Amino acid sequence: MIIIAEKINGSIPSVAKAIVEKDAEFIRNLAKAQSEAGADFIDVCASVDTAIEVETMKWLIDLVQEVTDTPIAVDSPSASVCAEAIKFCKKPGLVNSVSLEGDKIDIIFPVIANTKWECAALLCDDTGIPKSSEKRMEVFAAIMAKAKEYNIDPSRLHIDPLVEMLCTSENGIKTIVDVMAKIKAQYPEIHVTGAASNISYNLPARKMINQGFVVLAMNAGMDSVILDPLNRDMIGLIYATEALLGNDEYCIEYINAYREGAFGTKK
Amino acid sequence: MIIIAEKINGSIPSVAKAIVEKDAEFIRNLAKAQSEAGADFIDVCASVDTAIEVETMKWLIDLVQEVTDTPIAVDSPSASVCAEAIKFCKKPGLVNSVSLEGDKIDIIFPVIANTKWECAALLCDDTGIPKSSEKRMEVFAAIMAKAKEYNIDPSRLHIDPLVEMLCTSENGIKTIVDVMAKIKAQYPEIHVTGAASNISYNLPARKMINQGFVVLAMNAGMDSVILDPLNRDMIGLIYATEALLGNDEYCIEYINAYREGAFGTKK
Repeated sequence: MIIIAEKINGSIPSVAKAIVEKDAEFIRNLAKAQSEAGADFIDVCASVDTAIEVETMKWLIDLVQEVTDTPIAVDSPSASVCAEAIKFCKKPGLVNSVSLEGDKIDIIFPVIANTKWECAALLCDDTGIPKSSEKRMEVFAAIMAKAKEYNIDPSRLHIDPLVEMLCTSENGIKTIVDVMAKIKAQYPEIHVTGAASNISYNLPARKMINQGFVVLAMNAGMDSVILDPLNRDMIGLIYATEALLGNDEYCIEYINAYREGAFGTKK
Repeated sequence: MIIIAEKINGSIPSVAKAIVEKDAEFIRNLAKAQSEAGADFIDVCASVDTAIEVETMKWLIDLVQEVTDTPIAVDSPSASVCAEAIKFCKKPGLVNSVSLEGDKIDIIFPVIANTKWECAALLCDDTGIPKSSEKRMEVFAAIMAKAKEYNIDPSRLHIDPLVEMLCTSENGIKTIVDVMAKIKAQYPEIHVTGAASNISYNLPARKMINQGFVVLAMNAGMDSVILDPLNRDMIGLIYATEALLGNDEYCIEYINAYREGAFGTKK
């Protein structure tokens, strides 16, 4: 499982405060903790006024790179901010994200075309998030056509079918599970990702919904996820699910991760 | 989800002690707590010397029935003890269990033939637990032939495909998930059950493995489970999974269970 660590995000009040107060130590600690918890990418999202977004991204990315070698996921609703932020990174990371909205994909794909950068791609377009799985697969097909055009291998893409809140759903997660399975069937080497906690908006005891979702999504082929790696129960459940799904013979990785303290009672 | 509450079992040291010391209050409290936590059946297993098993079952069953109307699951490795224990129950419950071992099924099925008793049936025979899913399906077919012979409707059966420990498995839970899905496809009205915690024998942080297993087994059709209903995280995860699988429109049951205090932070 590829873990994209979500905690350095200006939409989180404590991070917003650290950005305003230039609290470098807070950001460094967050980067270090997430890296040590097993993050594969450290997501960096400024969530500030566009006038200062690029400089804030640079400040955050520099701080993260002071304390860890874990690649960075440059995260902005603006494709051009992502394109700028790429320049601050010492090694290839992940662009979070493109979609068929506006010219995002035509800004980002040329920039990463001949690099090792990976890219998250959301299955939405200018009309919003398609309701049916058929429509989302049409958006997917259009994204893959663009990827082919820019010679971006499927293995560099993390397709996010867009996790929507369960509380307004009539058929649970049937649509998203269906889309995930179809994508993996078409491109076994592609990554399927999602922002796990979106599923539980407006519900109590969100942890329960998030946990169940991650297990079922992994079963459908999700192999990349945006979440808080400091959530030890979730990390343990992910290792457990890998073993249950037959991806961890004799539970060796599960046992090793436990011994290294990734989950279970804190030592 | 049908919850068969497992805690009144003489193989648990505190229960064994209560049996030896005739600590009626301990047993009554355990019955009451499990019933209040939402158990559909209270399993009663003496796990004592065969010479005193029937009288111990009677003592336990009487105590349970003093404090709750929740039906009882009479649980013994001996079919004739189960047949005796049925007589102590005020209302129909569940026999736990038969299998193709020895004459178990020919002792129990005639006793419950014209009643509303339900019955758990394990997919094993005198040769033990079959390795392949094909062999388990053969045992299943033989059990269903017996059920037909005694006119026991599939809706009264809880088929337990036998959860084995994950740590010695090479392909995770592929076999059991396969068997569960096949059984449900053949008989949509049958119940598929399992002893959740068997999956995690010999592994650390067993909770993680048990939780992942229950979610994946529910996805494969498991609609009955033997577990500790006082495990609030597991109960919450089960409600969450029902909603995720589309069995709880707009999460109404999930939200109600939360409001009633079945899971989440204790009020």
